Amino acid sequence: MEDFHPNLLGCQLTFISPEKMTACDVVFMALPTAAALEYAPKLISMGCKVIDLGAAFRLKKRNDWEAVYQHRHSAWKLAETAIYGITELHQEKIMQTKMVANPGCFASAAILGLAPLLNNKLIDLQRIIVNGLSGTAGAGAELNRAAHHPEINNNLIAYNVVDHRHTYEMEQELSLLSGENVVVHFTPTYVPISRGILNICHVFPQSKVTRDQLLEIYQLFYDASPFVKIIDTPYEENVSWQYRSYPWVSSVAGTNYCYIGLDVDEKRNRIVVFSVLDSLGKGGAQVGIENMNLMFGFDRTSGLTALGRHPA
Amino acid sequence: MEDFHPNLLGCQLTFISPEKMTACDVVFMALPTAAALEYAPKLISMGCKVIDLGAAFRLKKRNDWEAVYQHRHSAWKLAETAIYGITELHQEKIMQTKMVANPGCFASAAILGLAPLLNNKLIDLQRIIVNGLSGTAGAGAELNRAAHHPEINNNLIAYNVVDHRHTYEMEQELSLLSGENVVVHFTPTYVPISRGILNICHVFPQSKVTRDQLLEIYQLFYDASPFVKIIDTPYEENVSWQYRSYPWVSSVAGTNYCYIGLDVDEKRNRIVVFSVLDSLGKGGAQVGIENMNLMFGFDRTSGLTALGRHPA
Amino acid sequence: MEDFHPNLLGCQLTFISPEKMTACDVVFMALPTAAALEYAPKLISMGCKVIDLGAAFRLKKRNDWEAVYQHRHSAWKLAETAIYGITELHQEKIMQTKMVANPGCFASAAILGLAPLLNNKLIDLQRIIVNGLSGTAGAGAELNRAAHHPEINNNLIAYNVVDHRHTYEMEQELSLLSGENVVVHFTPTYVPISRGILNICHVFPQSKVTRDQLLEIYQLFYDASPFVKIIDTPYEENVSWQYRSYPWVSSVAGTNYCYIGLDVDEKRNRIVVFSVLDSLGKGGAQVGIENMNLMFGFDRTSGLTALGRHPA
Amino acid sequence: MEDFHPNLLGCQLTFISPEKMTACDVVFMALPTAAALEYAPKLISMGCKVIDLGAAFRLKKRNDWEAVYQHRHSAWKLAETAIYGITELHQEKIMQTKMVANPGCFASAAILGLAPLLNNKLIDLQRIIVNGLSGTAGAGAELNRAAHHPEINNNLIAYNVVDHRHTYEMEQELSLLSGENVVVHFTPTYVPISRGILNICHVFPQSKVTRDQLLEIYQLFYDASPFVKIIDTPYEENVSWQYRSYPWVSSVAGTNYCYIGLDVDEKRNRIVVFSVLDSLGKGGAQVGIENMNLMFGFDRTSGLTALGRHPA
Repeated sequence: MEDFHPNLLGCQLTFISPEKMTACDVVFMALPTAAALEYAPKLISMGCKVIDLGAAFRLKKRNDWEAVYQHRHSAWKLAETAIYGITELHQEKIMQTKMVANPGCFASAAILGLAPLLNNKLIDLQRIIVNGLSGTAGAGAELNRAAHHPEINNNLIAYNVVDHRHTYEMEQELSLLSGENVVVHFTPTYVPISRGILNICHVFPQSKVTRDQLLEIYQLFYDASPFVKIIDTPYEENVSWQYRSYPWVSSVAGTNYCYIGLDVDEKRNRIVVFSVLDSLGKGGAQVGIENMNLMFGFDRTSGLTALGRHPA
Repeated sequence: MEDFHPNLLGCQLTFISPEKMTACDVVFMALPTAAALEYAPKLISMGCKVIDLGAAFRLKKRNDWEAVYQHRHSAWKLAETAIYGITELHQEKIMQTKMVANPGCFASAAILGLAPLLNNKLIDLQRIIVNGLSGTAGAGAELNRAAHHPEINNNLIAYNVVDHRHTYEMEQELSLLSGENVVVHFTPTYVPISRGILNICHVFPQSKVTRDQLLEIYQLFYDASPFVKIIDTPYEENVSWQYRSYPWVSSVAGTNYCYIGLDVDEKRNRIVVFSVLDSLGKGGAQVGIENMNLMFGFDRTSGLTALGRHPA
Repeated sequence: MEDFHPNLLGCQLTFISPEKMTACDVVFMALPTAAALEYAPKLISMGCKVIDLGAAFRLKKRNDWEAVYQHRHSAWKLAETAIYGITELHQEKIMQTKMVANPGCFASAAILGLAPLLNNKLIDLQRIIVNGLSGTAGAGAELNRAAHHPEINNNLIAYNVVDHRHTYEMEQELSLLSGENVVVHFTPTYVPISRGILNICHVFPQSKVTRDQLLEIYQLFYDASPFVKIIDTPYEENVSWQYRSYPWVSSVAGTNYCYIGLDVDEKRNRIVVFSVLDSLGKGGAQVGIENMNLMFGFDRTSGLTALGRHPA
Repeated sequence: MEDFHPNLLGCQLTFISPEKMTACDVVFMALPTAAALEYAPKLISMGCKVIDLGAAFRLKKRNDWEAVYQHRHSAWKLAETAIYGITELHQEKIMQTKMVANPGCFASAAILGLAPLLNNKLIDLQRIIVNGLSGTAGAGAELNRAAHHPEINNNLIAYNVVDHRHTYEMEQELSLLSGENVVVHFTPTYVPISRGILNICHVFPQSKVTRDQLLEIYQLFYDASPFVKIIDTPYEENVSWQYRSYPWVSSVAGTNYCYIGLDVDEKRNRIVVFSVLDSLGKGGAQVGIENMNLMFGFDRTSGLTALGRHPA
């Protein structure tokens, strides 16, 4: 285990092959699509609760899913009943389900960042731009060109520039919130940090609104959400500290938090929303723990107050 | 000199105070606003040609300039005749002027990236989003919090999120090109690379257009421009190499080149344009050299084919 | 507070000026030399226990201290009784003292890395080379040239190349352990990571010894030390995983751990010892907490099992 | 070509398979060991001059080579006559040879950094420590774990800690210079920069010597060497600028220069030598060009005054 996770030195955990797995209370699945479609129904019928960290059960439109993932969906019944695991939106349903589809990292950040605006019908639904910036750990543990240090170290690498898979998750959840069809224009770029995502969302208000009004709406919307924090530091002219008015991705690295900040260009009529999270934390493994806590009636924050991270 | 520029070890150049300066053919000015307003007219009247790397002579609307820079403009006559130094747009005028206002780095990248679209009236003029990413050398040589390594190293720092000064340069030049009032929605963010800018521009076409059609329009527009290159590598499914379809900021570090790439989301009707340049090269000192070459009738590429860089 | 420590958003702690401070159980001091010399005796006489994170009370030879820090020592009595806070060596004395001098970060790493060798009289005492590599947070929170991102990002910056202040701490403690005068040859270099120190120690065995023998000696020496771990992964030819045989600085970032690994060049008769720790953790604030736990009879690991970090 | 070298966009060079190669004046070989042993003699007999960037022809002791590279050497005759391509030491022989073995990058930096000391018999030959720090491009263009961005970004990775292959090159050349058997204690570590090597050499003088005396010896030794520069900036107390007293790896990135600096610990009797070069420049491809220039009687600096770099 330490070979793959050097920070777990001395942990005494071991790998076993999935065939040797016996019934257990909960399974966190992180599998290729075909394997996920095969194992998930089996595990559910064995009586396990399942939290799938992959993408096999995230979309509610079968046509979309099959087109996007280029695969026939052989367990659609289960997909229909799986709950999309954004705890801030679907807490009640997660508490009662046996099957959670953990959201994509970019999708989590975008949905959390934009939800209050759509819930309050404040913006143009056809011009939502999500400019995503991701650390290299988001590219996976496997070696790949975009995460090769000599290539990315002094570089910024755009990829899947249009029609990225996570776009469909964003559109699904934001449409649900607004009650209307939402179009999301999403483009991701790798940046040379290890962990974390910053989504910069550019949206256009239907009528005049100020930064303070929006901050109040956001505070209210996330009032009962222990893992979302709104940055309401006043904007300051002092250049050294004005940065504090927006969330820093370094502040949430290794945690289950999503920090959100925003600003309004009153002259040109635009809202900019910043949302940050760790793609391996609130955008990955840790939100899986949060979902488990809800599914089993545990304290929602159990196991999520300490940091623990590899890679650094 | 080597104390400040360790890469110039042994260069035998020295600093002198501006009072000791005698008449010369050309002066590159990099001064605070008040000093620039004072020195520029003096130098011109001494018979020097001037290339100003600062912002004092970039805008054509006096009200805008005085509001943005919070300063009375004491040399407005000169500002009116100064040429905005984007060589790809104003080559003829630069060849005949004594006073060039070197453009802002973000402005250069945005204007070069979007010019062909506006020149051909292809996009919605009210919804131009420019998402700027800048290396830390863009924050200046002086020590500052956003460029303090422990703060920025694993971080992304948004700043001047709305109404950034360079917005006015973009709007001025793009309006000129399109013949109509253009609104630019610009937000910059520092990323942990030393040099270079990537602008990700999200714009909305007036009617259906394909990536190939746009690439042809861009190639044509920049046909005679030695320092702009269009990336027309076909998009490939192979994830390792698809990155090559978009420009890399690392490819232009230390050079006077601007590389441009783009893609079209035909399903959702959006164009994404990527433009990269080095804020100390094509976005700063080197484009100053290019302007000098034009002003004096030298070969436009003189002194610009070798790389030379500090910081690395 | 959040202005300086954005990760503490919502913590509700505030700064007060030292004059307003009333008697309390323990004070962590992080002050310039002159202020430390003034406050420490005052605090002790007020009945406080003191943990000094500065260098004012670390050395036992007054002449050395006054030469190294270029300052008259006005509280030498207290310096004589202060305990040098390496918990692994001075646990008993720390439990009984009112005044701990927290060690320098490089010194901690070097002393922990070399202690078993000196305790067992295994090496040449005149040829101990400590090659220190430090992240930029080690340069302090104040802005400085060596931590300016454009300068250090693609760079390695050696400094205080000979006679660095921490050398005296290393020589003092290692001499104490070996019962003889030890000479340490120490040179530090900044590297572009945020946090953490890697000391690479090159030493020369008095007689033949193998890696396995040394690992056993180290395991035994640190058997009762909860915050020191020895990496005993066998060296593997497979180049992808052989790195696991030595400690990674990223594994201890944000923690109170020191990880140690080593190798022996049997052909050329050299031992290489690697020790890593976080200069803000085991090399700074967290070892201060560990010292406090010992001084007050608390569980030694209290407050030290969770990570918490700014900068990232 | 641009797929692999995006900075060469528009270069119109193409790859051909080696079988299609016809006779030419010079061949730069970068091949696996077995292929190098096969092709080199063929090319020489076809009348080509050969510059081998690999390790097949670098060592003069056959036993050492076969033990280190675990391979039978099938072209030993050629190995015996090949010239080890450190231009500063073997210029005359390189001018007359048909076969140059380009040195290893760490070996080049160490040999250039230490040559004046050994040539003047100033140091203890049994206690030469070379602490090597390398950027990740030194690990090769192929994907590998130590260059995976999430692993190395906030990390320092030691590897081949004892008996590294380049040690043999250092010992061979330094023994040749001193006329006696030299032992080198070398340990390399990857650091998160893209390009470049910093060797920190710790050595022990036979008798008292000062920094100024050594700088003079170095200046004299490299007087006629256009690509070696000695940093003789006086050491300053002002902490902001003292860094300038030692060479920066960022100053030589992308170039064919080796910069050397040094200091002396007169109290503890140690010399520290710093040498920096770009492992893809003076430590790789560019020194190959320099060797070609010498072999063909060209100006030694031809093609080497411009920077050109991928990765950045």
